[in-house]
Amino acid sequence: MISAKLSRPVAILGLGLIGGSLLRDLHAAGAPAYGWNRSPLDTSFDVTDSLEDTLRRAARDDALIVLATPMPAISSLLDALTVHAPTAVFTDVVSVKGAVYDLVRERGLSDSYVGGHPMAGTAESGWDASQTGLFEDAAWVVTYDHALEACSPRWTQAFSDVIHLANLVGAHAIPALAARHDSAVARISHLPHLLAEALALVGDAGGPLALSLAAGSFRDGTRVAGTAPDLVRAMCENNSDALLGALDEALAILQDARATLAGGSVSELAVDGNAAYERYRARGAGSRPVFRLLPGEEGWVSQLQLAEQQGARIHVM
Amino acid sequence: MISAKLSRPVAILGLGLIGGSLLRDLHAAGAPAYGWNRSPLDTSFDVTDSLEDTLRRAARDDALIVLATPMPAISSLLDALTVHAPTAVFTDVVSVKGAVYDLVRERGLSDSYVGGHPMAGTAESGWDASQTGLFEDAAWVVTYDHALEACSPRWTQAFSDVIHLANLVGAHAIPALAARHDSAVARISHLPHLLAEALALVGDAGGPLALSLAAGSFRDGTRVAGTAPDLVRAMCENNSDALLGALDEALAILQDARATLAGGSVSELAVDGNAAYERYRARGAGSRPVFRLLPGEEGWVSQLQLAEQQGARIHVM
Repeated sequence: MISAKLSRPVAILGLGLIGGSLLRDLHAAGAPAYGWNRSPLDTSFDVTDSLEDTLRRAARDDALIVLATPMPAISSLLDALTVHAPTAVFTDVVSVKGAVYDLVRERGLSDSYVGGHPMAGTAESGWDASQTGLFEDAAWVVTYDHALEACSPRWTQAFSDVIHLANLVGAHAIPALAARHDSAVARISHLPHLLAEALALVGDAGGPLALSLAAGSFRDGTRVAGTAPDLVRAMCENNSDALLGALDEALAILQDARATLAGGSVSELAVDGNAAYERYRARGAGSRPVFRLLPGEEGWVSQLQLAEQQGARIHVM
Repeated sequence: MISAKLSRPVAILGLGLIGGSLLRDLHAAGAPAYGWNRSPLDTSFDVTDSLEDTLRRAARDDALIVLATPMPAISSLLDALTVHAPTAVFTDVVSVKGAVYDLVRERGLSDSYVGGHPMAGTAESGWDASQTGLFEDAAWVVTYDHALEACSPRWTQAFSDVIHLANLVGAHAIPALAARHDSAVARISHLPHLLAEALALVGDAGGPLALSLAAGSFRDGTRVAGTAPDLVRAMCENNSDALLGALDEALAILQDARATLAGGSVSELAVDGNAAYERYRARGAGSRPVFRLLPGEEGWVSQLQLAEQQGARIHVM
């Protein structure tokens, strides 16, 4: 059994797909949770459109605040948090972690912040797309950069609460340093978007005949090109260093394949690519190792590092 | 209603995923069909492992022969056909059309051959993976290069029979010249395989953390990297000229994106790629225009060319 006992209420700022789904799941689990959304929502959930009221309430409650807006709004949310809930601990759900951590550090809030990123979503967005069960078996990255420095017991408790939060909604909490997270998601999330957009363009350039013949490989290979361009920009442009590295690797592989194909063979790419795919397929959500930790205990940071290397999930005691 | 009256029996050479599924569908539709497979099959269908017997029977029956083996076996099948069924008309289901047509022309068989390519498949292969209904609503390309030259009434009848064959199993017959087919499938089928293999490799290079975080975009973007390397090689290497063109287009798009991303933006790729995707999505199997033709009639080749430009399906009267 997963122990998932949150030590405090949860205040969610931004009730789109991720924030809204989180509120629904917490409510379903009987955990105290409330939220703010910029535009008023017609719902019976405990939500308001006053950011100041929500932050003041979170400060009074000593709630765990979840920043659940897209990246472009994070900076102004942090400014409001500094004013209205300066002592609160908080996490976020943004798909890049280095850029958020930079904003947190600029404001001297490192000891109040544990970064998060649930690897869940649909092509839809907004409160109307939110649903229960969205995070079931999904990876939920939790960053631990601050644990390498001098962290307070209050931070350690916040770290435990973020793990509990992830577990409470059925996700697998996976520790990673912000930079390692960003490098990993550049490979497995942001690069797929660039390749899908490029494939959509090359198919489209083939005109009606090519699009009429498109079947499963084109449908799957282009699917995430259906994502709203602004969301793709927010992901990719806020993780440009790591994404440039991943893109360069892909370009080098494709240029090598071009050279061998001009000589008549794609054997190397076909064999190596298939072997890589089979290694990926051999891993499933059920196959992630599990580490059990007591945050703050002697040696716990080494355990986090080991879990990160293995892509393991963690439980906290 | 689709008129789908085959004028003759069907003899299928090679009973893998495509040939086997075709035999099952024809049998279910009550159309006379039999087959040959290199290795004996334990089945109640009318099949044998003697190629010579099957070809002689097809010659006696004046059957439509379907070459349903992978590309590497086509050359030797054509040689056997020349010996044992020299007067028979035939089609094929190979995923490249120019390379097959070259082999057909080398043997002087152009007036007996109508190329075909059903855009259907699964990650599985072989008789055990064959199933009824595989071709429902799938595109089935039918080549018409020979109609631009002097073609006989016998060839025109064979062309009609291949259209009937496709319609009989629920597919949409779409006319294309061999070279145009090859260019289109390079874009929408072969390029997706190269991109999937490259993505699988870049993800794998991120180690256990990256693979542990991989979610929907990576799963969909790599799916066809699960295809057996030999099949990927047969597709890509036999269509290398067209595929090099499509790959160069993709590389140019990705290199442009790299340059703008280094300057902080992927706006152009995200906006244009999404627009291209939406154009693709706006087309569905149900939205293909339908042309009705009488093969051999005055002006029918112009109708084929117009249908090809539109990616339209054709029915024959």
